[in-house]
Amino acid sequence: MRILLINGPNLNLLGTREPEIYGNKSLTQVENELVEIANHNQAKLECYQSNHEGEIVDKIQESIGKMDGIIINAGAFTHTSVAIRDALITSQIPFTEIHISNIFNREAFRKRSFLTDKAVGIISGFGVRGYSLSLNGIIEYLNEKKTNE
Amino acid sequence: MRILLINGPNLNLLGTREPEIYGNKSLTQVENELVEIANHNQAKLECYQSNHEGEIVDKIQESIGKMDGIIINAGAFTHTSVAIRDALITSQIPFTEIHISNIFNREAFRKRSFLTDKAVGIISGFGVRGYSLSLNGIIEYLNEKKTNE
Amino acid sequence: MRILLINGPNLNLLGTREPEIYGNKSLTQVENELVEIANHNQAKLECYQSNHEGEIVDKIQESIGKMDGIIINAGAFTHTSVAIRDALITSQIPFTEIHISNIFNREAFRKRSFLTDKAVGIISGFGVRGYSLSLNGIIEYLNEKKTNE
Amino acid sequence: MRILLINGPNLNLLGTREPEIYGNKSLTQVENELVEIANHNQAKLECYQSNHEGEIVDKIQESIGKMDGIIINAGAFTHTSVAIRDALITSQIPFTEIHISNIFNREAFRKRSFLTDKAVGIISGFGVRGYSLSLNGIIEYLNEKKTNE
Amino acid sequence: MRILLINGPNLNLLGTREPEIYGNKSLTQVENELVEIANHNQAKLECYQSNHEGEIVDKIQESIGKMDGIIINAGAFTHTSVAIRDALITSQIPFTEIHISNIFNREAFRKRSFLTDKAVGIISGFGVRGYSLSLNGIIEYLNEKKTNE
Amino acid sequence: MRILLINGPNLNLLGTREPEIYGNKSLTQVENELVEIANHNQAKLECYQSNHEGEIVDKIQESIGKMDGIIINAGAFTHTSVAIRDALITSQIPFTEIHISNIFNREAFRKRSFLTDKAVGIISGFGVRGYSLSLNGIIEYLNEKKTNE
Amino acid sequence: MRILLINGPNLNLLGTREPEIYGNKSLTQVENELVEIANHNQAKLECYQSNHEGEIVDKIQESIGKMDGIIINAGAFTHTSVAIRDALITSQIPFTEIHISNIFNREAFRKRSFLTDKAVGIISGFGVRGYSLSLNGIIEYLNEKKTNE
Amino acid sequence: MRILLINGPNLNLLGTREPEIYGNKSLTQVENELVEIANHNQAKLECYQSNHEGEIVDKIQESIGKMDGIIINAGAFTHTSVAIRDALITSQIPFTEIHISNIFNREAFRKRSFLTDKAVGIISGFGVRGYSLSLNGIIEYLNEKKTNE
Amino acid sequence: MRILLINGPNLNLLGTREPEIYGNKSLTQVENELVEIANHNQAKLECYQSNHEGEIVDKIQESIGKMDGIIINAGAFTHTSVAIRDALITSQIPFTEIHISNIFNREAFRKRSFLTDKAVGIISGFGVRGYSLSLNGIIEYLNEKKTNE
Amino acid sequence: MRILLINGPNLNLLGTREPEIYGNKSLTQVENELVEIANHNQAKLECYQSNHEGEIVDKIQESIGKMDGIIINAGAFTHTSVAIRDALITSQIPFTEIHISNIFNREAFRKRSFLTDKAVGIISGFGVRGYSLSLNGIIEYLNEKKTNE
Amino acid sequence: MRILLINGPNLNLLGTREPEIYGNKSLTQVENELVEIANHNQAKLECYQSNHEGEIVDKIQESIGKMDGIIINAGAFTHTSVAIRDALITSQIPFTEIHISNIFNREAFRKRSFLTDKAVGIISGFGVRGYSLSLNGIIEYLNEKKTNE
Amino acid sequence: MRILLINGPNLNLLGTREPEIYGNKSLTQVENELVEIANHNQAKLECYQSNHEGEIVDKIQESIGKMDGIIINAGAFTHTSVAIRDALITSQIPFTEIHISNIFNREAFRKRSFLTDKAVGIISGFGVRGYSLSLNGIIEYLNEKKTNE
Repeated sequence: MRILLINGPNLNLLGTREPEIYGNKSLTQVENELVEIANHNQAKLECYQSNHEGEIVDKIQESIGKMDGIIINAGAFTHTSVAIRDALITSQIPFTEIHISNIFNREAFRKRSFLTDKAVGIISGFGVRGYSLSLNGIIEYLNEKKTNE
Repeated sequence: MRILLINGPNLNLLGTREPEIYGNKSLTQVENELVEIANHNQAKLECYQSNHEGEIVDKIQESIGKMDGIIINAGAFTHTSVAIRDALITSQIPFTEIHISNIFNREAFRKRSFLTDKAVGIISGFGVRGYSLSLNGIIEYLNEKKTNE
Repeated sequence: MRILLINGPNLNLLGTREPEIYGNKSLTQVENELVEIANHNQAKLECYQSNHEGEIVDKIQESIGKMDGIIINAGAFTHTSVAIRDALITSQIPFTEIHISNIFNREAFRKRSFLTDKAVGIISGFGVRGYSLSLNGIIEYLNEKKTNE
Repeated sequence: MRILLINGPNLNLLGTREPEIYGNKSLTQVENELVEIANHNQAKLECYQSNHEGEIVDKIQESIGKMDGIIINAGAFTHTSVAIRDALITSQIPFTEIHISNIFNREAFRKRSFLTDKAVGIISGFGVRGYSLSLNGIIEYLNEKKTNE
Repeated sequence: MRILLINGPNLNLLGTREPEIYGNKSLTQVENELVEIANHNQAKLECYQSNHEGEIVDKIQESIGKMDGIIINAGAFTHTSVAIRDALITSQIPFTEIHISNIFNREAFRKRSFLTDKAVGIISGFGVRGYSLSLNGIIEYLNEKKTNE
Repeated sequence: MRILLINGPNLNLLGTREPEIYGNKSLTQVENELVEIANHNQAKLECYQSNHEGEIVDKIQESIGKMDGIIINAGAFTHTSVAIRDALITSQIPFTEIHISNIFNREAFRKRSFLTDKAVGIISGFGVRGYSLSLNGIIEYLNEKKTNE
Repeated sequence: MRILLINGPNLNLLGTREPEIYGNKSLTQVENELVEIANHNQAKLECYQSNHEGEIVDKIQESIGKMDGIIINAGAFTHTSVAIRDALITSQIPFTEIHISNIFNREAFRKRSFLTDKAVGIISGFGVRGYSLSLNGIIEYLNEKKTNE
Repeated sequence: MRILLINGPNLNLLGTREPEIYGNKSLTQVENELVEIANHNQAKLECYQSNHEGEIVDKIQESIGKMDGIIINAGAFTHTSVAIRDALITSQIPFTEIHISNIFNREAFRKRSFLTDKAVGIISGFGVRGYSLSLNGIIEYLNEKKTNE
Repeated sequence: MRILLINGPNLNLLGTREPEIYGNKSLTQVENELVEIANHNQAKLECYQSNHEGEIVDKIQESIGKMDGIIINAGAFTHTSVAIRDALITSQIPFTEIHISNIFNREAFRKRSFLTDKAVGIISGFGVRGYSLSLNGIIEYLNEKKTNE
Repeated sequence: MRILLINGPNLNLLGTREPEIYGNKSLTQVENELVEIANHNQAKLECYQSNHEGEIVDKIQESIGKMDGIIINAGAFTHTSVAIRDALITSQIPFTEIHISNIFNREAFRKRSFLTDKAVGIISGFGVRGYSLSLNGIIEYLNEKKTNE
Repeated sequence: MRILLINGPNLNLLGTREPEIYGNKSLTQVENELVEIANHNQAKLECYQSNHEGEIVDKIQESIGKMDGIIINAGAFTHTSVAIRDALITSQIPFTEIHISNIFNREAFRKRSFLTDKAVGIISGFGVRGYSLSLNGIIEYLNEKKTNE
Repeated sequence: MRILLINGPNLNLLGTREPEIYGNKSLTQVENELVEIANHNQAKLECYQSNHEGEIVDKIQESIGKMDGIIINAGAFTHTSVAIRDALITSQIPFTEIHISNIFNREAFRKRSFLTDKAVGIISGFGVRGYSLSLNGIIEYLNEKKTNE
């Protein structure tokens, strides 16, 4: 089971700023912990981050045939990128959407997501904990899917 | 650590209808599994279901001083009940919101939630798996909160 | 053929107030006449009224496997209850919606119904006559449905 | 008691296309059955169909002083014709609105009706059965009206 | 100076119904008075009425090269007909819009006009008096226009 | 018959600026011509202009019992002043609304009028000619009203 | 003079939580003070609280013929309950609406009230003081009403 | 304790017009009664009325340092004046908003208030009685505020 | 292969007015060129124009079983006619929509089309060239469709 | 080069209240500094403030032919006054709009300006510094304009 | 005649996924066929694809002075990119917009295009056939434009 | 004092196209002038331009700890990029927003800015002059900020 973790713009700064909201862990720390959790579950996790919409589209396209599931925190692109939506739909790879903060009690424009209605599931507001919940969620989903095939 | 699981209207029928969406597990099965998970985490889970908005408000009020966290799948009341919102706010008990299906790809009125902006976190669309993710999420949240106090 | 008639909040006062709009017949009189019409058509009609949303949800759930059709005048709940909508959908019992007054020339919020798009048919504005039209409509519908099976 | 049945655009094709939605009866068959029902109730039913908005306006104007009630399925004109609305209001002839399909679970623009708020009653979604329900409804209405005069 | 008066749907019934709103004068009486006023002003007035949108479009097209100005009370078509708007624009004949009643204190949909923004002027709410005001207005407008050429 | 003409903000500049839209006549010239027309019709016209909303409210209040009709071009206040609306309603003096330009093909906010739905009639877009049309309209209206009393 | 005070969901917790907003007085204390004020004004006040919409509807229905006026703080139901609105209208008992906090500077959805347009008066934002103002207001209203009969 | 009562446009006509809505008392009578009530409560009430938005702004500015509270019925300016809002905010004087009629069952534009969200409290719809309720309300508020300081 | 070209209201004036927008070719010239193109592609093109919505509905109905494809420039009816939409859907004849001008940079109401979402394709803004592009498009579409059958 | 500085309602209180937002400088101090800057640039600055919309309209009208540019901080009137907009347009004097605070992060209604789309430029949010930036901006604009003539 | 074909995000996957919607031809095949068509028409076609908004902006800028026309299928960027709109406007190169699927019967957000109102023409919904129609359209447009110069 | 000037998409073409709007100065010329102004004020200005949203996000992230202030003309990204908003917020570097043209009298979508509510100040519509005003504004702001620390 191969899973891709995609983090969108500004998430590379995780842990260095606004720790009261985003915590003290750097993105690398979070990614390392997730890789370990994946390993314990016989899954292989690849981690990717970019501030460029086009690169994320490229990455999703490259994942076709290589990945079984995607965990995506598209950050700001969640609210503005139809291109990432289309890449995910075209790839036909099941994905889950995760947000560190609760996007429903922030600016009104953050309530619109171009991804959510196509996601296997969405997790929002649990802090960086949400990543491991998402990872567990997609692993269980993929296991069950394999069982049903 | 004491946690209350609240299920709203029509969730008592879980497992008996539309299994392709909601799976085959009955609410009792789901609740039993969650109690076990809670026990393994040194937490005590109480389970409650009602089709009556007023009874859920009563239950939340009774939980003041007795519960450390609430997991709520308010079902249809998510979209219509300000009373439950007010009860949760007044109780000052941290809560997480969970939905079995992905409420963002259903009828437009299901996109409005009276609870989400006040929740610690929201999980939607992972099927009944979402309950255990929520339980893990709130336990981790409460542990961290206790640590910080 | 077993049919359930559900009347929602304030319809228990039928015939006692605003007779120019709602006529002089009490709910009991209306129900009795409908039971007779049902009997003449080899159908059995059960009548139920409640001012409590939760009780109506309960009643619909109890009807699963016991009723072939539902006639519902949800009154005020028509415009506010997603829980009754969900109960009707989950029950998979065909239902017709009826309103005594013409809900389309009253307050704007009465134009929104949480039931109509899922109903076999809707009748609005014929006064209490609408009940017998609804009963005839659902009986014909159920007969035709049985024929087609 | 003289009643006019008006069918609007494309209803002349009834029974020849999309039978799963509209049934197998042609408009002529439906009209004949309704004439018979009218006769049994000491009423005289005239049937009229047109694809032309202007002709329907003309027909309604000609009915002044000749008809006691109108049953109208304005079809597509329901959603676009203020002229037919004005003709009906000006004629002061009581009318009922009927739709074969459930206009509330189709395209959003079909939810707007220029007629409904002025109708004695509306019936929508019972299939062609709705015509006889409408006929019964208007006959009862006119009988009661005559009684009250 | 040749002027065309166009009256739209249901205006042929003027004077026969709702006299408290529309007065007692028939359309013919109104037209005759206007013809006289026109004659006194060295203008020739042609009067036309139709309940058919298509016929009004035809009439406007036929007026190209034959008429110097148009007075139009499009009635219900004011709010629904882009075709009449397009015919008037294409014809390049200056026109004034007139309504007998005050369309701004009636149903909300009557506030939308497809003609007004292209009219030389609009007169609404003066009763049938509005026709002679419109006639005077367009004659003065055309005289001034001729003077300026 | 006593009639008050009220002109709102910036109309004192009439004739001095943008003559292609507003013509070359000064407000005084327009007022003088209207006074003459009024005299020819056995009516007495008083003319008033102010750039101050409060002064126009005062003026309308002072007209109670002194004026039989009001012609108002409230200019910019048409779109912003509820106070003038309330003064006109409270005064119970019939009034007509007039605009020199066609307010329906200008900025969107000019389509909202706080006066129109309460006016005897509205004239918009005939240039300064609209004033004499308005004067004729209100005189005819008041004559007819007197006749009916 | 018999007056009913109805308090809706979560108001039973008054005085125990968020004292900076709601003060320190418990609902019982507030009710006792109001009963005394009523007694001093030759009025009899009955106090009722419920978290259940259906029970409040029942209570209003039972008040028909027994109560002369109602003071209602419907709490969250203010914004969601058409059933309570209908019960109040059907009962034909004059009522006043009161809110402890200023509902106009809170969440947007609290600006919609299903009760206000039918109330004798509304008081919002004076803290628990608003109850005695409401009581004085309804007593004066009922006294004046009796005087006018 | 010094309190300023401000009445906005057209309220100077109180008692002389539409007595069925506004009663028979003139503004002077109302003001006199309120001065007396104030005196009985060791407060000094100054009364002010103007039809001019600018003068009301001036008055509020002059009250800084001279008044402890303001009761304002801004009339039409409630719905249109940001300047009065800003003056009240800048003055930092606590104020209550009062309306004689129920502004929530009148024209839609009267539902928008530029003052309410900043008011200590709002009273609407109790007739002129609302003034004394407001006065009592602000006196109690100011007493409590003084106590807490 | 039989194809019907339908032109709606005012398109009969093509080439005679506003040549800078619509070019100098008359409708007859355009039609003749299209017939020739059709002939070269072994297709038979029938051309039809009407200013009457009802006649276009009639024409579409008559095409059932006689035509394989329809090219429609419904002109103004594009934005107002549900009847033509319904006729096209009922006919089950594949159709393409064409507009001479770019309807997306004109008045806002021209952005709403009742046809587009049901069309095989839409072409807008290429001038009269759009007709031949449409013809080529529908011919290729029908050829491919035949191949796939 | 003659420039007029207009400050609208409540700006006369500058420097005396809310210094953390508006700074400590009084309006007179700000005006004096601006006059000096103007002098250094061979321009003459006249300063004007009023809480009265009508007076500001008067002032703008009086500036015709006397002023080459206007700097306006219309304060609250920015969001409500069409009369000031019209006065500025009619005057044909180039103007710049300035706001001390950032009007885009305050109440939603402050985002609507009746002036901005007609301004040479807008400056918002720089504190009182914005005045000198505006002055420099309009001086440069007028110099360039003179150069181009 | 030099023409640039731009394909936006995810269109590089053409032919490899969802063939029932997008057909079996790869983007390269489509491009090759178009180059040939261009050659037959004495035009030179350059083909470009990118998933990066910025690169498409760069490409359009580089085309200034090098290209006579642009055919663009901006894919997802159609609905989100003002930057591409601005690049196309700034370049002043005539362009046509093409979509393979019918964007008017997909998600609501696909109805908004930032390009369409500036395009020479738009073609949507003809499948990959739309490319050759677009190419023919722009060639004819450019030929006519050259003729007119 | 180190300041970064960021120009977004298409601003690299400044001075080469549409000089009547944007003037004749190239971006390099503008940048050079600004560097000089900065130098005269003891500030160091770095200039950056990109057509790529991701690169601008990268640039802002790299400025953390290196820059004291940012001047940004995000061009088209102003209206579409949440990622740049987030980068600016996360960086905690004070920034000013500048637009060469008046974005408030252009297309409606240009009125929405994702940056403005977080900016120290906004300058729009002064032409390229706006850059130097912005530079002066931010320098004064940073000087004052330093003074206050």
